Amino acid sequence: MTRFAAVDVIRAKRDGGVLADAEIDWVIDAYTKGEVAEEQMAALAMAIFLNGMTPDELARWTQAMIDSGERLDLSAVTKPTTDKHSTGGVGDKITLPLAPLVAACGAAVPQLSGRGLGHTGGTLDKLESIPGWRDKVSNEDFVAQLNSVGAVVCAAGAGLAPADRKLYALRDITSTVESIPLIASSIMSKKLAEGSATLVLDVKTGSGAFMKTVERSRELATTMVELGKAAGVHTVALITGMDTPLGRTAGHALEVAESLEVLAGGGPSDVVELTLALAREMLAGAGLGDVDPVEALQDGRAMDTWKAMIRAQGGDPDAPLPVAREKHVVTASASGVLTRLDAYGVGVATWRLGAGRARKEDSVSATAGVVMFAKPGDSITAGQPLLELHADDPARFDGALAALDGAVEIEAGPFAPPPLVLDRIS
Amino acid sequence: MTRFAAVDVIRAKRDGGVLADAEIDWVIDAYTKGEVAEEQMAALAMAIFLNGMTPDELARWTQAMIDSGERLDLSAVTKPTTDKHSTGGVGDKITLPLAPLVAACGAAVPQLSGRGLGHTGGTLDKLESIPGWRDKVSNEDFVAQLNSVGAVVCAAGAGLAPADRKLYALRDITSTVESIPLIASSIMSKKLAEGSATLVLDVKTGSGAFMKTVERSRELATTMVELGKAAGVHTVALITGMDTPLGRTAGHALEVAESLEVLAGGGPSDVVELTLALAREMLAGAGLGDVDPVEALQDGRAMDTWKAMIRAQGGDPDAPLPVAREKHVVTASASGVLTRLDAYGVGVATWRLGAGRARKEDSVSATAGVVMFAKPGDSITAGQPLLELHADDPARFDGALAALDGAVEIEAGPFAPPPLVLDRIS
Repeated sequence: MTRFAAVDVIRAKRDGGVLADAEIDWVIDAYTKGEVAEEQMAALAMAIFLNGMTPDELARWTQAMIDSGERLDLSAVTKPTTDKHSTGGVGDKITLPLAPLVAACGAAVPQLSGRGLGHTGGTLDKLESIPGWRDKVSNEDFVAQLNSVGAVVCAAGAGLAPADRKLYALRDITSTVESIPLIASSIMSKKLAEGSATLVLDVKTGSGAFMKTVERSRELATTMVELGKAAGVHTVALITGMDTPLGRTAGHALEVAESLEVLAGGGPSDVVELTLALAREMLAGAGLGDVDPVEALQDGRAMDTWKAMIRAQGGDPDAPLPVAREKHVVTASASGVLTRLDAYGVGVATWRLGAGRARKEDSVSATAGVVMFAKPGDSITAGQPLLELHADDPARFDGALAALDGAVEIEAGPFAPPPLVLDRIS
Repeated sequence: MTRFAAVDVIRAKRDGGVLADAEIDWVIDAYTKGEVAEEQMAALAMAIFLNGMTPDELARWTQAMIDSGERLDLSAVTKPTTDKHSTGGVGDKITLPLAPLVAACGAAVPQLSGRGLGHTGGTLDKLESIPGWRDKVSNEDFVAQLNSVGAVVCAAGAGLAPADRKLYALRDITSTVESIPLIASSIMSKKLAEGSATLVLDVKTGSGAFMKTVERSRELATTMVELGKAAGVHTVALITGMDTPLGRTAGHALEVAESLEVLAGGGPSDVVELTLALAREMLAGAGLGDVDPVEALQDGRAMDTWKAMIRAQGGDPDAPLPVAREKHVVTASASGVLTRLDAYGVGVATWRLGAGRARKEDSVSATAGVVMFAKPGDSITAGQPLLELHADDPARFDGALAALDGAVEIEAGPFAPPPLVLDRIS
């Protein structure tokens, strides 16, 4: 590999230039090895933040991050592989019903997930509320479980995209997070390293998402779809609303319970709608576009696959889920129509009830969360229960209530909530 | 002091905002103490590089860097104090005749100098070619020498503007050097911490300077003059040409010898002109505008002060200066008028002959350098000696000659060299 000087690479980006392929390959490799110092990568990240990257530059950057580690070898998987990634939202439990549903329809779903940071919950945290379930799966067991069960949801090993792992931690302390090229390359390097042949992206937009506007979400989605295509992976993105939480629960065990309703053929209509929309995209990408996922929900195959998936990772799918010791009900202050139930407010409240972590090392409460008895568009009678806060420690209610201040609006109506799926980028 | 989060300060500057005074005070103090990490300051420096600072922000930033350490107390100095700073050029030995000259005229010159890095030479490196001379002077001796001799040229102690010391090293490896706010605050924090009541800046412009255009030099000069005024220090800047070297020598001992010619009342006209121009500004600032520095050069008082200054720091002003073992003469390839003798080319050649250092720890050759037999505007006869390269190791000539490739141009003429002093900012 050609060697460069870090100062030259930084200067080129600082001055608005385009980095050469060999410069990108070198700087990512040298950073992974510790030869480019953290302060040098910090300066480069800020220069990228402010000056951007061209599509070709970004594709090479993403490839270099993939090449910094191993790429999962799924060649021994006998079914077509398809993966899904969400940019994160409040009440976003979709992976839980989606992965077994798509597996029940004949595809293999290799899903390496993360933990929550900030006001959004992590899929692994949710699954850990199931007694016995473990997030670690060896590469060997990963392939075996894909062939037997059809779905694996587990933690990513340290070997995947280690450059991204370092850079992600650095961006967090240097205010270089909210950059579309850096977000897109971070997500896509991890997802592409997982080796799935097709990928569906759920790009959230709104108050509870990292992208607050449809325009920014569309820009991120387009960037990621292009990166997927550049890497030879069939990639589609849906842009979906996150002004209000998904479903009627936010919190780890609460969301598992709601997911079980969906897998049993019921559940909140928005969760069902988005699960099916993403399932259809994943199946179409996997060449199974003629399979109807609705049937697999109704005839119990999706639930059977869920149970097999949980058992394969040590969990007991029939054990009762933990429940919070304390509950606090918030009632409606007026009659009318619920026009606003703010996702960010509910997310912060859930976090403060104990579901979130301030630092990576923190543990989370499985039982803490918010149950929503009404969603935007519902008619409301003054005094009816609107929200139920769950926590093991009642001292946490005050902070959660403060986060919900201004999050609820009841007006005269009528009010039609916006559609859930706002756009599709392919 | 109010505490902030580094990420918030970085984000504010990243997004084009103006940092509050308390944020600036905190971030500089916390960085000096190691509480703000190097990678965080690197991201902030890049954000400042790309988004700039307002004059008020920069004044506060500079003051915070001064406040990170001690400020020299010159209250016990009985004469008016005046200091000079040059942004650095090739053959710029002006401090050597200037400091004793101004002292001989009745002012006190507290001059903390640096070492060379890159293609420009450092004043301390030049003085170290004098046998016995030492660059370290205690604060107590500093004031005593100002009262007895009138001039001190020595190394800055670690206590002055330690924030700048850290930031300077960081900028060097993160490509955040060439930023006018960062350059101006770096220079001015050190100079203002020296406690001089008045300050004259020599801002170089041209191929051998860090600022390549008059516009950039004027911007830097204006920024520094404003910073000086904001700190209550009478500050004037001259913008002077650096397309060709100053004088007829570049190299440490060679430049000391040339400075002695000036102190003896002779020397190259450009060195004399600039020495007198800066001396007049310094004397005017010190309230000694009616003193004629030409007299002090001619009647030997400037030379006497030089000798006293060198002796006070252990040097022998009458000892012979070291001379290089090997010389290589470059002759003119054509007849005509010398229209170009490029400062950057001569600077790099001097560096390669042994006068420069690649890293701070490197030692330098006292004898290496270039003697120039002609300057732009001089008539040239083909075959006449143009340059003489000096080195102890003849293996260094090839690299120096390569640096001089294209640095010399002889044309039909006539050619009038541009004026040396291009502008004055006050």
